[in-house]
Amino acid sequence: MTQPNIPETTLPRVVIVGGGFGGVNLAKQLKHAPVQVVLLDRNNYHLFQPLLYQVSTAGLEPDSIAFPLRGIFRKQKNIVFRMAEVTGIRSTENILETGVGEVRYDYLVFATGSNTNFFGNKGIEDNAIGMKSLIEAVQIRNYVVKQFEESLLLSDPELIKPKLNFVMVGGGPTGVELAGAFAELRKYIMPKDYPDLPQDLMNVYLIESGPRLLASFSEKTSHQTQHDLQALGVRVMCNTGVKEYDGQVVTLSTGEVIHSQSLLWSAGVKGVPVKGIPEEVRLPNGRILVNEFNQVKGYTNIFAIGDIAQMTNDQRFPKGYPMVAQVAIQQGKNVAQNLRLFMEQKPMKAFYYKDLGSMATIGRNRAVAEFSNMRFSGYFAWIVWMIVHLMSLLGFRNKLVVFINWFYRYFTYERGTRIIIKRGAANIVKLRQTVGV
Amino acid sequence: MTQPNIPETTLPRVVIVGGGFGGVNLAKQLKHAPVQVVLLDRNNYHLFQPLLYQVSTAGLEPDSIAFPLRGIFRKQKNIVFRMAEVTGIRSTENILETGVGEVRYDYLVFATGSNTNFFGNKGIEDNAIGMKSLIEAVQIRNYVVKQFEESLLLSDPELIKPKLNFVMVGGGPTGVELAGAFAELRKYIMPKDYPDLPQDLMNVYLIESGPRLLASFSEKTSHQTQHDLQALGVRVMCNTGVKEYDGQVVTLSTGEVIHSQSLLWSAGVKGVPVKGIPEEVRLPNGRILVNEFNQVKGYTNIFAIGDIAQMTNDQRFPKGYPMVAQVAIQQGKNVAQNLRLFMEQKPMKAFYYKDLGSMATIGRNRAVAEFSNMRFSGYFAWIVWMIVHLMSLLGFRNKLVVFINWFYRYFTYERGTRIIIKRGAANIVKLRQTVGV
Repeated sequence: MTQPNIPETTLPRVVIVGGGFGGVNLAKQLKHAPVQVVLLDRNNYHLFQPLLYQVSTAGLEPDSIAFPLRGIFRKQKNIVFRMAEVTGIRSTENILETGVGEVRYDYLVFATGSNTNFFGNKGIEDNAIGMKSLIEAVQIRNYVVKQFEESLLLSDPELIKPKLNFVMVGGGPTGVELAGAFAELRKYIMPKDYPDLPQDLMNVYLIESGPRLLASFSEKTSHQTQHDLQALGVRVMCNTGVKEYDGQVVTLSTGEVIHSQSLLWSAGVKGVPVKGIPEEVRLPNGRILVNEFNQVKGYTNIFAIGDIAQMTNDQRFPKGYPMVAQVAIQQGKNVAQNLRLFMEQKPMKAFYYKDLGSMATIGRNRAVAEFSNMRFSGYFAWIVWMIVHLMSLLGFRNKLVVFINWFYRYFTYERGTRIIIKRGAANIVKLRQTVGV
Repeated sequence: MTQPNIPETTLPRVVIVGGGFGGVNLAKQLKHAPVQVVLLDRNNYHLFQPLLYQVSTAGLEPDSIAFPLRGIFRKQKNIVFRMAEVTGIRSTENILETGVGEVRYDYLVFATGSNTNFFGNKGIEDNAIGMKSLIEAVQIRNYVVKQFEESLLLSDPELIKPKLNFVMVGGGPTGVELAGAFAELRKYIMPKDYPDLPQDLMNVYLIESGPRLLASFSEKTSHQTQHDLQALGVRVMCNTGVKEYDGQVVTLSTGEVIHSQSLLWSAGVKGVPVKGIPEEVRLPNGRILVNEFNQVKGYTNIFAIGDIAQMTNDQRFPKGYPMVAQVAIQQGKNVAQNLRLFMEQKPMKAFYYKDLGSMATIGRNRAVAEFSNMRFSGYFAWIVWMIVHLMSLLGFRNKLVVFINWFYRYFTYERGTRIIIKRGAANIVKLRQTVGV
C-alpha cells in the first residue's frame, strides 16, 4: 500500500525524486501528459544554486534564491508534491522507500543531484565547508561575519590572520565566483565596517590542482579570469593541491602551509548514492550509469537525469556530461518526451546536449562568458551574466528582490545582509527537535 | 585591563548594553557628545521587532527586518561596537563582565530589553514558542510549513487537526497581528497550496485572559478588532487563561481543551536580569527600578532604559511605562541629553513620555489606530500602519525590500517565503559549533 496518502488514479504514475533543475523541468513538461506525477524532495523549495555563493557572501537573502515547489506547480493539476527523503528502492516491486512511507511507481526518475566530493580525505571532510545547500550558505555568512567580529577582540596580528585567511579550493565557476565575492568583501566592506582591522590581515586564496582556472573555458578566458582575480587581490595558486586540513592549517601539495580557519571546498561534486540501486550501475563517482535515453542500465522504467546520471554517448564528453544546470534541464525535457513516446510504444529519442555556453562572474563589472562562437569578458559579460541569471530565477518576487539587491549594491557598495542569525536561549526545544533547524 | 581590545581614549566612556530601539537611539544622539560610546549586543544587528510576526508567517524575509549595527553607525566616529553578551557587573570597580572579557565604563546604560514571560508555568515554557527573536520567527515559519506538509501524509482528520490548530495566547498587538496573519494564511494560501486539505481542519485561536483584546486601546477599538478577527475566522476567547500545555493539549481556565501542537505565546514579557545588579533594584517582573532620570536606584552612573527599566514617576502609568518601542526611543534620547548635562554638572531633565499613539494591523486592508485625538480603523488605518512601519525601518534597502514584498503580496495574495531552511547532512560540524546556528 502506498502510505504517504497519495491519491491513486488510473493513470500511470511517474515518480520524480528531486526538485532541482532536472526534476522541476521534467515535471513541468509532463503538465499535459496522461500521467500522475509525484514529485519528492527533502526540501519544500527549488534552490537556484548558481547564486548560492552570493548568499554566503551576504549579498542576497537566502529566501530570494529559493522558490517553494508548491508555488511552481500550483496550476499543474496532475502533480502531487511530498516532502520526503528517499531511503531505498525495491525495483522488483516498483516500490520506492521514503522517510514518510512507501511510494509505488510505474516510472521512476532520479534527479537527486550531487553533493560535495572530498575525494575521501577525512580531515578535509571534517573541517572544510561545502557549497551545495542553502543552510551551508547561511552558515558560511554567519561564520564569516563572526570571524570579523572576533578578530576585533584580538590585538596580536598572528592570531587574527588565521581568522581572516579565507581559502577557496577548486578553480571552477563556483570557486572563482566565491573568491571574487570574498575579494570584494575585503575591498569594499572591510574598510567601512572594520576600519580598525588593517586590510592586509585578510587574504583570499584560490587553489586549483589543475594548470588553470575555469578548465572548461578557453585558455584565453582562464588567463583573463586569473588576471582579474589577482587584480582584485586574490592569491591564485594553480597546479596546487590540498593535502591536509585540520581546521587551523592548510597543507598544500607544494609543502607550503596557510593558517586558516576557513576552507571553502568547491573542488568537486559526486552523485548522491541511493540505497537499493544495484552496484553495477553505480559508478565510483557516485553517479548512475544511464543509456542515451537516460534509462538506468538494466531497467526500462527507471531513469536518472542531471548530476546523478552519467551518460557517455557523446564523444565530446567521454566521462559523461558536465554536472551543470543546463544538462539537467535538457535531460529533464528529453525524458518527458521519451516517457510519452515509450507509453505510446514509439521509439525514444536519444539525448543530445546543446551547449548554450558558460559564464562566470568575477566581481563588479567583471565577468567572463563563452558562447558557441563568441567569447567576451568585462562589463558587457557582467551585464549579460546578470540578465541571464535574473531571467532564470523562478518567480516575479524573487527576480525583483534580487534585482533590487544588485542595484542597491552596485550604487552603494553595500552588502545588505551581513547579519548573524543564531539561536537564542529561548524555549524552542520542540521546534528544534521537530524542524531540525 | 580592558580585554576586548577597545581603544582607550581620554574621553569619558559610555557603555550601552543592547542595540534595540533604546540603545540605538541613545548611541545616535551621542554622536557629537565628547564621549567614547561602546555599544555591546549579543547580535550584530538591530531587529525591527514590530514586524517579527510577518517573518513567522512567511510574509517577509528575516533579513529585511534586521539591520547590521555596524552599518547604522558607520559614519559615527565616537562609537565602538562589540558583539558580546554581558554576564555581570562589578559596580564598585566600574567594570562590566562580558563573554569576551571585561569592559571598563564611566557611564553604563542597560538597554537589554525583555524576554518572553511564561509567568513561571514550566509546562508552557517548555512547549510553547515565544515571539521575541529572529531565530524564533524563522523557526515558527519552518515549523508551520512543516505542519502542513506532514498533514498531507495523514488521512485521519483527528490526527491532522492538532497539527493545524494554531493557538495564540495574549490579546495585545503581537497576538492580534499574529492571529490575523495566520487567519490570512488559512484564507488565501492554504486553498492554493494545499487544496487536498479541507480548510476547516485548520483553526486559529486567540486567547486573552482579560475581558477584551488590545487592553491599552479604547473599548470601541477592542470591539472592532475582535469583530474583524472573527470575520477572518479567528476564534477569539476573552476572559480565558491557559492553565496547562504539554505540547499536545492546551488546557484552558474554563476547563475546555484544544488539541494543538503549536502554542504561540505573546501573553507577556519580562526584563532580562543581569548578574551583578543588586537585588533591591531588581523587581519581580525582571525590570530594574530607575528614577525619573533613568538612573538605577543607588547609582549615579548606571542607567536603564526601555523595557528593562521601570520608572513610576507618571501617574498615568503607576506600574511603569508600557514595554513598547516608543518609550525606549524617547528614554534613549532623554538619557543622551542627561548624560551631557550630568557631565557639565548641570541639573538633569526628568523623563516625560509622549504617547504618540498605537496601531495594530489585523489583515489585508484592516487595521486599528489611535492617536491622541483620533481613532480610526479599516483601510485608512491599514495604509497609515504600513507607512509608519516602512518609515521606521532602518535603511533604504530594507524599506524597499519590505515594500516590494507587501506590494507583491497585496496583488497576488501570495507569501513569498514559505520555505523550510533546515540543516543538511553536510560537514558543518565546525560551523555549527562556532556559530551556534
